[in-house]
Amino acid sequence: MSEIQIIERLQRRVPIAKGELVLGIGDDCAIFRPRGAREDLLFTTDLLIEGVHFPRDLRADAVGHRALARSLSDIAAMGGTPRFCLVSIALPDKWTRHLDAFYNGLLKLARRHGVTVAGGDLSHTSKLTIDVMVCGAVPRGRALRRDGAKPGDTLYVSGKLGRAAAGGYRAQPEPKLAAGRALRGRASACMDLSDGLSIDLLRLCEASGVSADIAEVPVAPRATLEQALHGGEDYELLYTGPPGLPGLPIGKIGGSIPGMITYGGELLQPRGYDHFAYNSRR
Amino acid sequence: MSEIQIIERLQRRVPIAKGELVLGIGDDCAIFRPRGAREDLLFTTDLLIEGVHFPRDLRADAVGHRALARSLSDIAAMGGTPRFCLVSIALPDKWTRHLDAFYNGLLKLARRHGVTVAGGDLSHTSKLTIDVMVCGAVPRGRALRRDGAKPGDTLYVSGKLGRAAAGGYRAQPEPKLAAGRALRGRASACMDLSDGLSIDLLRLCEASGVSADIAEVPVAPRATLEQALHGGEDYELLYTGPPGLPGLPIGKIGGSIPGMITYGGELLQPRGYDHFAYNSRR
Repeated sequence: MSEIQIIERLQRRVPIAKGELVLGIGDDCAIFRPRGAREDLLFTTDLLIEGVHFPRDLRADAVGHRALARSLSDIAAMGGTPRFCLVSIALPDKWTRHLDAFYNGLLKLARRHGVTVAGGDLSHTSKLTIDVMVCGAVPRGRALRRDGAKPGDTLYVSGKLGRAAAGGYRAQPEPKLAAGRALRGRASACMDLSDGLSIDLLRLCEASGVSADIAEVPVAPRATLEQALHGGEDYELLYTGPPGLPGLPIGKIGGSIPGMITYGGELLQPRGYDHFAYNSRR
Repeated sequence: MSEIQIIERLQRRVPIAKGELVLGIGDDCAIFRPRGAREDLLFTTDLLIEGVHFPRDLRADAVGHRALARSLSDIAAMGGTPRFCLVSIALPDKWTRHLDAFYNGLLKLARRHGVTVAGGDLSHTSKLTIDVMVCGAVPRGRALRRDGAKPGDTLYVSGKLGRAAAGGYRAQPEPKLAAGRALRGRASACMDLSDGLSIDLLRLCEASGVSADIAEVPVAPRATLEQALHGGEDYELLYTGPPGLPGLPIGKIGGSIPGMITYGGELLQPRGYDHFAYNSRR
């Protein structure tokens, strides 16, 4: 079973939206509307596992940065402002001495974006495993979702792609929170690029029921076209809307077969990272 | 370093309360007050790891129940009503076939308490590791905290203790949500018994700056006094307040050395479960 299949099975068993829960499984964040509140709250959680999401020899402060950056990027993708996080850590005994450095990296990024660590859980295990939940806020009804792309929309990314892959996945990605907020009320759909342009664009197209044609891929310095198309962890934003939005236009949304993606008119096979399909780069 | 020491180090580095965050690290849940909302929101997250929190041969539906029950118990301890959860799962490849059974157990408990699964994350690893975040709600300012116990208060538990230990930690605990809600506005402090009476009472006393004397321990059928005092995972509530509250009175709160716990006048050494101190029963 692929990750998408597992999520689809689960989606069929639980309601996508119910009461205060405006949006459930399937987007970058869940959207919750507290009774009487002026803002919607966004919720996302991301696992970071040794040997799966980062190389074993990555410095502890870099691990801390990355653990939080992944979830902050989901908040950025919805146009939100992060408020607080919960940090769960299962760690091998000998890693306890790296905890201070881990929190140095995490708290430095947290302070930069006004995020408070509000709690979490601690346990021990054999392989360092971190799960970070972030709560963000967005003006009521203004969250950017991935299901709003329309045929005729221009397709954009917020920056050049393939940087993380070209650097051996050692760079410290900076979540694009300001870019996300600037798209509120302007982009028709938005998500973050965590697993690679080709697979993430497929997800956006499937959620919106549209097709897409990529005209031009902005390749980061030292990256290959291959890395820009299929490399993950760039944490740039992928979004759609009218011409003239900030960022780099890379193509057009179309109305043919939902999920069909072409690059310069040729069919493009998604090849990013699916945690269960093993079509992995790592 | 013990779990308490690690948490204390972290607490010194992040604000306990800030803006909408009414309460941060150190209680069963964090408390968040959304702008303009009539309710406070409660947030908690709990790890469940194969071989640490449950035996390797536990049935997948029981694992699903337990993964959610732990976090629901934290919501119960604050007097809240659970709203939604996020479920992160890192699983070994061969465990994928147990996912349906896992969700059966989790969703059955979720439905019973009106909790929606709103999202989560999936990845693979060598040892099954689950992290469940639950968001609950409580009328504004009415959450039960563990720092409000006063000398002279009666000390209670919601039920007999040692049941989980006597059953080899295989029972499916039922979170005491109705009992927690019934204590709102009545109990001066409350927490759940996850790691054992002796260590959890120490935590309550330290948070409140009080001492406690246990007069009588209500022992569950087939459990020993030892199991009732130090066994974990009963998920009963431990709380303080005036005489006449529902539940079983077990002793008194005192004003001598904060954190000093006596049983029938004799000093009681905490011996519950600390994930980092290895004074463990498992």
